Amino acid sequence: MTALTAVHRLPSAQVHTDFLSATDAARLVARVGVVECVRRITQALEADFGRWNDFDKTARTAAHSAQGVIELMPVADAHDYAFKYVNGHPVNTQHGLPTVMAFGALADVATGMPRFVSELTLTTALRTAATSVMVARTLARPGSHRMALIGNGAQSEFQALAFIDQLGVRELRLFDVDRAASAKLQRNLAPFAALYGVEVQMVDSVHAAVQGADVVTTVTADKRNAVVLDASALAPGMHINAVGGDCPGKTELDAEVLARSSVFVEYEPQTRLEGELQQMPADFAVTEFWRVLSGAAPGRVSDAQITLFDSVGFALEDYSALRTMQALGREAGLLSRIELVPTLADPKDLFALLHQGEDMHQATLPSVERAAWHKVA
Amino acid sequence: MTALTAVHRLPSAQVHTDFLSATDAARLVARVGVVECVRRITQALEADFGRWNDFDKTARTAAHSAQGVIELMPVADAHDYAFKYVNGHPVNTQHGLPTVMAFGALADVATGMPRFVSELTLTTALRTAATSVMVARTLARPGSHRMALIGNGAQSEFQALAFIDQLGVRELRLFDVDRAASAKLQRNLAPFAALYGVEVQMVDSVHAAVQGADVVTTVTADKRNAVVLDASALAPGMHINAVGGDCPGKTELDAEVLARSSVFVEYEPQTRLEGELQQMPADFAVTEFWRVLSGAAPGRVSDAQITLFDSVGFALEDYSALRTMQALGREAGLLSRIELVPTLADPKDLFALLHQGEDMHQATLPSVERAAWHKVA
Repeated sequence: MTALTAVHRLPSAQVHTDFLSATDAARLVARVGVVECVRRITQALEADFGRWNDFDKTARTAAHSAQGVIELMPVADAHDYAFKYVNGHPVNTQHGLPTVMAFGALADVATGMPRFVSELTLTTALRTAATSVMVARTLARPGSHRMALIGNGAQSEFQALAFIDQLGVRELRLFDVDRAASAKLQRNLAPFAALYGVEVQMVDSVHAAVQGADVVTTVTADKRNAVVLDASALAPGMHINAVGGDCPGKTELDAEVLARSSVFVEYEPQTRLEGELQQMPADFAVTEFWRVLSGAAPGRVSDAQITLFDSVGFALEDYSALRTMQALGREAGLLSRIELVPTLADPKDLFALLHQGEDMHQATLPSVERAAWHKVA
Repeated sequence: MTALTAVHRLPSAQVHTDFLSATDAARLVARVGVVECVRRITQALEADFGRWNDFDKTARTAAHSAQGVIELMPVADAHDYAFKYVNGHPVNTQHGLPTVMAFGALADVATGMPRFVSELTLTTALRTAATSVMVARTLARPGSHRMALIGNGAQSEFQALAFIDQLGVRELRLFDVDRAASAKLQRNLAPFAALYGVEVQMVDSVHAAVQGADVVTTVTADKRNAVVLDASALAPGMHINAVGGDCPGKTELDAEVLARSSVFVEYEPQTRLEGELQQMPADFAVTEFWRVLSGAAPGRVSDAQITLFDSVGFALEDYSALRTMQALGREAGLLSRIELVPTLADPKDLFALLHQGEDMHQATLPSVERAAWHKVA
């Protein structure tokens, strides 16, 4: 028993899981730089969307309640399995919690061993912005420099910075029904606006925001069929980055906006259920974005065309983001460890774990079992 | 900035996640006692299966590879959302890893806040045994005292102890193709066998194990269509607890065994895909066990009837086990904390997190962004 216990306590190189906490993720992003993180994730996304057929894809599972939704988003290639847990509860901000909270993991496909667990609340904001700007760089008119940003909550700074840094946006018009949210966004953007030379203006209506915009980003939180944008707002050549409509019964655009646009999506089977697309007939034509990236389908074909990215968030984006954050976290020395899986001397002898526990707490074992343990020891 | 930062650092009572590590779960089970833990989970299972219609149920998602499978298993009632990550890789034992590794979480349905994250490798073994014995107590013949246990790997001690403690098994016949696994099981059971007065015998064949058994438990790991048990092994009145056939292409029983038995399942849509049932026509009649528990369907109706529990493992069992382990862990003071979700002073201001990070690592910010941050500070 003594010898066996000693073996159990040998450290194993095989069984460990890296962990990136919420605080360490914030430290990491501050250290690397938020625009640099979004750039790195954008690069990973382009590489991963570029090998779309390597992935085992599925629409996420969703548990709906009156207050919100909780989703699980798995995806895998031949080497890595990734999943994200994420909620969407618009009422949360009223009692001090974020609307969206997330965490997730990477595991080895060959063994099922979970190798990395991470916060994904901050990371989701980064990867959503990275996805939006990856698509906009391909679909928006060259020289697009004015963006309307409608919905100025937790995701909005990340969207703004991605488009300033990677698309060259130099005029931003902000609108939110909560004026304090717009003021917060303007305040957070101020130093970047000064650095990049961006004019940031709060406006009083969607119409004022959209007027003259090259890009319109909608990222509102309400879980209902809202009409944040109607067809009267459209202008030739616009690119619409529609981020907020992302589950059944939660949309932002008038159906006519979709009807007048060329619509691009992440993963069609999921977007049909969750995106703005849920408003349209089942045969309404859309293009999966990876086909544009790989040259299999056209993107923007004219300056007058209205392009629309019906973004709902797809598991592959979390795969790319988890791998990027793990690599950055490792370089920065900001990964800790989490003891999620037991280390076993004999993997068929899970029961032996209890002897380890017993060594430490023998005195507190229930009497009926204590008698049994004592005979082993 | 200084005042704002101070606010960010206020602790919040709302945002915290309890954590039960693999080592602390082993400590907890050793402290409470393994048979007592299985009893507590069995009680929770009976209560939760007894309110079956309170739950939002779905078949688990599975990512299959040549080496194994990785699954996500969500379930929710009006208050609690639970999910488990679990793999099944039979080859793992050859390179020192468990066949099955698992972890999971409980979250508030009302907010999506993850409240509890736990190892579930050990806990899965406990809850699988608890589920088996819950079903056997209802379906096995009164006075069943002899059990064949086929497959003597990581799960087998837990199955044996549950049936010894809660069904009154007093004769155990062990068989495994790996004789060392049977020897390990016999060694681990020895003190309990002495305490409860159980005769434990290793035998050389399935036939020798099954001969005269009241209960036959099969819990093998091979990911293939095996025939661990064929119809020649059947005897009137037997209860078969078939645990190992649990994903497409992984079965243990000859189809004729099912044809001659009354078959009970956890959640029919999932078992049709994953259980022994995958061998049978779509209209082969089965009974969901909760209906027996609630009196809506008969269980065993005669002493000669052969009852068969085609167990695949259902998310509700992890819900019950997670809640039980959280309660036991809290009582024992063995829960730690994991910082999975950021604490925000203003939940619409996720970006403010980066200022916290910046305070700590200002000197290492990339130069382009450092200039921007300095204008805020």
